[in-house]
Amino acid sequence: MYYSQVTSCISIPRAILLQPKTNWPSSKPGNERRRAGHWTRVPRNVNMEGLRRGYLFPEISVREYEHARRNPDARLIRLGIGDTTQPIPDTITAAMAEHAYALSTTRGYRGYGAEQGDMELRMAIAETLYRGTGVKGSEIFVSDGAQCDISRLQMLLGSDVKVAVQDPSFPAYIDTSVIVGQSGKLEEKTGKYNNIVYMNCGAENNFFPDLSATPRTDVIFFCSPNNPTGSAASWKQLKQLVDFAKTNGSIIVYDSAYAAYISDESPRSIFEIPGAKEVAIEISSFSKFAGFTGVRLGWTVVPEELKYANGFPVIEDFNRIVCTCFNGASNIVQAGGLACLTGDGYQAVRNVVGYYKENAKILVEAFASLGLKVYGGENAPYVWVHFPGTCSLNVFDQILEKTHVVTVPGRGFGPGGEEYIRVSAFGHRENIIEASLRMKKLFN
Amino acid sequence: MYYSQVTSCISIPRAILLQPKTNWPSSKPGNERRRAGHWTRVPRNVNMEGLRRGYLFPEISVREYEHARRNPDARLIRLGIGDTTQPIPDTITAAMAEHAYALSTTRGYRGYGAEQGDMELRMAIAETLYRGTGVKGSEIFVSDGAQCDISRLQMLLGSDVKVAVQDPSFPAYIDTSVIVGQSGKLEEKTGKYNNIVYMNCGAENNFFPDLSATPRTDVIFFCSPNNPTGSAASWKQLKQLVDFAKTNGSIIVYDSAYAAYISDESPRSIFEIPGAKEVAIEISSFSKFAGFTGVRLGWTVVPEELKYANGFPVIEDFNRIVCTCFNGASNIVQAGGLACLTGDGYQAVRNVVGYYKENAKILVEAFASLGLKVYGGENAPYVWVHFPGTCSLNVFDQILEKTHVVTVPGRGFGPGGEEYIRVSAFGHRENIIEASLRMKKLFN
Repeated sequence: MYYSQVTSCISIPRAILLQPKTNWPSSKPGNERRRAGHWTRVPRNVNMEGLRRGYLFPEISVREYEHARRNPDARLIRLGIGDTTQPIPDTITAAMAEHAYALSTTRGYRGYGAEQGDMELRMAIAETLYRGTGVKGSEIFVSDGAQCDISRLQMLLGSDVKVAVQDPSFPAYIDTSVIVGQSGKLEEKTGKYNNIVYMNCGAENNFFPDLSATPRTDVIFFCSPNNPTGSAASWKQLKQLVDFAKTNGSIIVYDSAYAAYISDESPRSIFEIPGAKEVAIEISSFSKFAGFTGVRLGWTVVPEELKYANGFPVIEDFNRIVCTCFNGASNIVQAGGLACLTGDGYQAVRNVVGYYKENAKILVEAFASLGLKVYGGENAPYVWVHFPGTCSLNVFDQILEKTHVVTVPGRGFGPGGEEYIRVSAFGHRENIIEASLRMKKLFN
Repeated sequence: MYYSQVTSCISIPRAILLQPKTNWPSSKPGNERRRAGHWTRVPRNVNMEGLRRGYLFPEISVREYEHARRNPDARLIRLGIGDTTQPIPDTITAAMAEHAYALSTTRGYRGYGAEQGDMELRMAIAETLYRGTGVKGSEIFVSDGAQCDISRLQMLLGSDVKVAVQDPSFPAYIDTSVIVGQSGKLEEKTGKYNNIVYMNCGAENNFFPDLSATPRTDVIFFCSPNNPTGSAASWKQLKQLVDFAKTNGSIIVYDSAYAAYISDESPRSIFEIPGAKEVAIEISSFSKFAGFTGVRLGWTVVPEELKYANGFPVIEDFNRIVCTCFNGASNIVQAGGLACLTGDGYQAVRNVVGYYKENAKILVEAFASLGLKVYGGENAPYVWVHFPGTCSLNVFDQILEKTHVVTVPGRGFGPGGEEYIRVSAFGHRENIIEASLRMKKLFN
């Protein structure tokens, strides 16, 4: 069987494949290496040269791989990358299977769909997840995932905008910013790109940036519930953010990929804030909401009200990007997305989310019982543990060495993540309990 | 049922939705329109401003839509956009359905896969479609389609390269070139962007560019079998192209999306030419090969031998783009791709391709019987008909008006497509025969 051939345990982590191993000369003339074989005369994209080399995630993968090699008998528990582990409810996979089978019939065959996604799915997203916000189906663009939409948004925005990001945050905002040429140079000392504004979000400011001290930028990437801190911004905080963007004429790119994990009264969407349609784009995903990490489905909301400085509607350019650079999400997968939002499907995926939230609670309790400051977990599948005064990579190493549990050092999410460890609540319950026990043994 | 809700006939063509209807002021200060509602202060991307507005494809969709509205009883036959119509062989959809069902089991569930694609599929592509060329599985990046990979390649290349395209050609090469800022301005008079080299490919040069008259560029987009002309370059011609690229230090981006339609001895891949691995990237797709237009699956080959001017391997940067801007093709769809290449699947998809090739033959014969010069069809699912001295949009209009058959005016593929009409061979046989009869009536 195709799907039963990969068994879990030790395989070469995907991130270390093909990573640049050495430093290369800059593309500037006169800087060439000694030639072996034919070289073209095409200059390497200077933006690609600007990307961090040997950055933290591949390094972590290497350490995990090395650890597994040195400890072949250890039961490694992976709470590092946030990868879903629980089966998808069968009402959803049945809808996908049915759609697949139908493609073998004259009546059920479908070729190209709308690049923007099937209107029935767009309407279902609007009605189920944006009820009362004024978001319309026609403002929703179905995609193959939020990460892909981040890069399409960056193509839309181009190189002449300045962006702000939460620090710490999901690395793709900055990496894509570098790729399209917005970022300026990396300052090795600070670990920051010099044309990007880093909005510190730490325990000292309750993981919400001090906007009064934040300079204006064209674009503000804002993820809530946040990856990695697990913190969800309150209605009042998001109102401040929307007001800030409005005053500054900025566009918020709001990432709500973890909205399904919110337990308290925090908004599930930026569009719950009045006026947000004039200043915000929202990207989101079925990955963590419905276990679609490998199935691939997401969406982006671009409101009609959002305008550039010359009054041109952003939605028209984004539509052009989607039609030119994308060709729609898989029709089979879209059928699965629709099943997640209709009938029994919605409650079924909510139950899986509930399972991961219970996992998060177990992890939070375990770390808290050790007297550590623990954040996140309540509104997100990530637990963010503070180890004051430490280097997060060392804490990561120690945990891996002593407990065979893979986490992520906070430094991987930006300088503001130092001293923290992110622990993912995605996993089988037995592994979460076992990991908790090992942590208690190690730190007690 | 999800898939039975859209019936064919009259629906608003997707391309006219959300198209810019008016000219907007440039983003330059002082050029603003009278303000209605809040406008941000974010400048519209100047590259997006440079894209052709109201270009031909939406215009065609509007005309098709208007025609259908005015002739509600006419049986419209759509041989315009190249959209597959025949059911996918059930051995392939069964593999996808099986994979979907397995995602509901503890044993069969899979989260994130490798961004580059499942290694089993990459190996199968290498072994089935690149046997004897030296292309390895590790050089193949599985994607959600060739169009998506074109834009990822443009992100890779950045704005500081100069590109050449065949004229006529698939519009996405130029449009993505404009979006990333390579193109310069559009000359309204010639219909050409002034920093792009247009390589004329017409009947007078047997649809292969005169390379001796072609200036050096960094990148050469080359599609064979060509969309829209249907012409496949011979081994000798491709050898010339590879030599030309090698001499100039250029990179060929070779689009082989229609390779499965080749009937004669023309190469199926640029990598059949010795030395091509040092100068070429190849993009391809399951769309036309296996009816996956709506299922979404493609791949790109980036050989290890391909180096930038500073010796840096292109594959390493492309891998970084794939990992940052993409997250892998759907695992369900990849299972389908594997089924296309193994067991009975391969012959089954070949049979469907054979059906479309038979369609093409019928169309070629119909137009030839009218004394028209007809190209393509033998090695491609497109028939390219010459109407000397005409404006292709007028011919399109006349055919639509008189026969209710939708085609594409050649001008939509660039200035070099003027005087031609592209007719797609994708369709049910009865429609192809009916369309041929109507043409014979019209032009006889």
